[in-house]
Amino acid sequence: MNTADLGLPVDVPSTALFTDQYEFTMVQAALRGGTAERRSVFEVFTRRLPEGRRYGVVAGTGRLLDAVENFRFDAGVLGFLRERRIVDEPTLAWLSSYRFSGDIWGYPEGEVYFPGSPLLRVEGSFAECVLLETVILSILNHDSAIAAAASRMSSAAGGRRLIEMGARRTHELAAVASARAAYVGGFDSTSDLAAGFRYSIPTVGTSAHAFTLLHDSERDAFRAQVDSLGRGTTLLVDTYDVAEAVRTAVGIAGPGLGAVRIDSGDLLLVAHRVRQQLDELGARDTRITVTSDLDEYAIASLAAAPVDAYGVGTQLVTGSGHPTCSMVYKLVARATSASGPLVPVAKKSLGAKTSLGGRKWAARRADAEGVAEAEVVGTGPVPEVLVARQLLVPLVQGGEIVAREPLDAARDRHIAARAALPLSATQLSRGEPVLPTEYV
Amino acid sequence: MNTADLGLPVDVPSTALFTDQYEFTMVQAALRGGTAERRSVFEVFTRRLPEGRRYGVVAGTGRLLDAVENFRFDAGVLGFLRERRIVDEPTLAWLSSYRFSGDIWGYPEGEVYFPGSPLLRVEGSFAECVLLETVILSILNHDSAIAAAASRMSSAAGGRRLIEMGARRTHELAAVASARAAYVGGFDSTSDLAAGFRYSIPTVGTSAHAFTLLHDSERDAFRAQVDSLGRGTTLLVDTYDVAEAVRTAVGIAGPGLGAVRIDSGDLLLVAHRVRQQLDELGARDTRITVTSDLDEYAIASLAAAPVDAYGVGTQLVTGSGHPTCSMVYKLVARATSASGPLVPVAKKSLGAKTSLGGRKWAARRADAEGVAEAEVVGTGPVPEVLVARQLLVPLVQGGEIVAREPLDAARDRHIAARAALPLSATQLSRGEPVLPTEYV
Repeated sequence: MNTADLGLPVDVPSTALFTDQYEFTMVQAALRGGTAERRSVFEVFTRRLPEGRRYGVVAGTGRLLDAVENFRFDAGVLGFLRERRIVDEPTLAWLSSYRFSGDIWGYPEGEVYFPGSPLLRVEGSFAECVLLETVILSILNHDSAIAAAASRMSSAAGGRRLIEMGARRTHELAAVASARAAYVGGFDSTSDLAAGFRYSIPTVGTSAHAFTLLHDSERDAFRAQVDSLGRGTTLLVDTYDVAEAVRTAVGIAGPGLGAVRIDSGDLLLVAHRVRQQLDELGARDTRITVTSDLDEYAIASLAAAPVDAYGVGTQLVTGSGHPTCSMVYKLVARATSASGPLVPVAKKSLGAKTSLGGRKWAARRADAEGVAEAEVVGTGPVPEVLVARQLLVPLVQGGEIVAREPLDAARDRHIAARAALPLSATQLSRGEPVLPTEYV
Repeated sequence: MNTADLGLPVDVPSTALFTDQYEFTMVQAALRGGTAERRSVFEVFTRRLPEGRRYGVVAGTGRLLDAVENFRFDAGVLGFLRERRIVDEPTLAWLSSYRFSGDIWGYPEGEVYFPGSPLLRVEGSFAECVLLETVILSILNHDSAIAAAASRMSSAAGGRRLIEMGARRTHELAAVASARAAYVGGFDSTSDLAAGFRYSIPTVGTSAHAFTLLHDSERDAFRAQVDSLGRGTTLLVDTYDVAEAVRTAVGIAGPGLGAVRIDSGDLLLVAHRVRQQLDELGARDTRITVTSDLDEYAIASLAAAPVDAYGVGTQLVTGSGHPTCSMVYKLVARATSASGPLVPVAKKSLGAKTSLGGRKWAARRADAEGVAEAEVVGTGPVPEVLVARQLLVPLVQGGEIVAREPLDAARDRHIAARAALPLSATQLSRGEPVLPTEYV
């Protein structure tokens, strides 16, 4: 394939190389040793939430399903593996017909999670499952970190609108995934056109300081913008003097001006002044958007300010201090043949990195009022009372994806799942996970 | 274009949509207002380094040049912009023939930088330059953050080998860029096969705990691995008991065993014990690789341990506490026509976000011994003594890329540039930028 024609920034023709080399060498050794087809169960979980966080948010599931579907080996990829002598010929032959044929269960996208929650369970032969480790973790660790930050911000914003605008602060494709994860976490729109293109997320944006500076005066700039984009546009009013800019803006657009944006200064103070000035000028319906290194704490601190929308960049796409999750992908059970009984397995060495073996189920127990009170994780039969409250749903069955859904479904699910947590879940202050994890 | 055939996780057929919407609406308003063709100069710089850091590292330049080349509008992209009514028909017509035709100068990849360094200068019409803002910043902000962390880690490692293995902790394509940036910053190899495929970075990797757990015994697992990968392989020795694993490993592979890997526990203590045990078993040339949430401080703390290589994941791909840079892309000068004289411009509102107008040059002044002593930035003529020490080089001229280079050139440049800084540059402790920035 001539990837040069595509104009893509990374010329990788499938997801099969979003993989750590050891996954391939393990497949080679297992094929040769006769263990590659052993029936295996891998689980994704995290031993802890980021410090102080009260819940996690599963995001990236839809992307993960695409990645599993596209995990295949064309001639270019096989040629690379051969030329670099990463695996031997029998392994190349096995890879050339690779299609994941097993089952994947998982917490549905937007669901919340806690330490020990078995977020994803991948079942099949050892070889077919072990190859997916890195791409699955990349997607879940990144997207869930962004969604968790977005969720905190959307709690803090109350019902006010949130705009994702962090593309410039992260890798250009991580930006697209970030806009998607932010939407799952409760954001309303994005400035990133690629995210609008790929995931149909609503996009917004009007102008930057450069546009004002391009013109001979702020008046010229505002007039050009209103002439072209209409009175409903958002004028950026902090290039020179804010009060003068607001006067000019309403003078040009009239009281029907859509919005003004403030991108610097003491936002609390400036927003109050601008609101008062707009009201005095008769522009009572003109909205105020603020943008300037906001995070969930800054958003919360503006609760009493007359702000209509927040634009959030850096702190969103970097997970507000926690740019990744610590999810791992572990073999928890395997048979000694392709169909034999499963035996739980777990690493046993000293240190903190031990984990619980066995194929797990999970359910969220609720109290009499329907408020969640525990994350229950077990390896045996599911207690009758928890059967209907199980969290893992089938995502892939026999290699076929069975759980595609619109992004809005994940967003709605997240908002509902968060609402079912104890009230302290949305406290911004540092604390323990809002639900305990109980093992049965 | 049928992107479904590509198996790509993000179906964006060009870099043109790695863009914030306001860049398009600004182009529309400027086209209508007659200012789109005004000759303009944009510069990328940062007002500060991440807290406590002593220098920054320019990375991503090669990717940036690819992105500028691929910034074009096919029918799919234009159809999206039309259907979503993001811009009007005259703007779509203008975009359909878009090719960047201006000049880009920049610090070459791998060079170090300081607050105020004009890292990149983009010159052309306002419209053609303003469109590149987001994609340029995405690439530089991400890649430079990773390279800066990598550089600190490579200083701390002395001459020991560094393996990038963070793919699972970041977006799957950010991972590829991270492996590339880590290489620029001084790493030796990566576990990420996509990075090996795309950028020819050396790749490494052998096995994980899952491989040991797959087998009926550790002995079976080691034998299968050595049978398939040879005695030169790296055996992971901390699934159960480390001392027993080392004994088993040498028993199976003999004293010619390539390496052992330790992924948990007190690495300093365990490395000493394992070294002693290996030596006693006659495996004096068997190397020790350690991996386990390492950062530059952990690497430095293992300086006295008998460690041969470090594998670094999370802390590398998240920039060791600073996952992004704060680089901005600002209009610093523009003419009132396509060819008129440039007028410096700058935002003037209250608050910290002001910047210095005017088209800038930069040079690094050295003392008599050749050690750098200041980053000199100016807007007027370059003083004679600094002419030969200028930092900006031509990257794109009249729309043509003129500065493609192998990745090793950037890596070598970084190592040389870092070596020319005062010794305190590589102190890991927090401090001020190691060079002052002087404006003339």
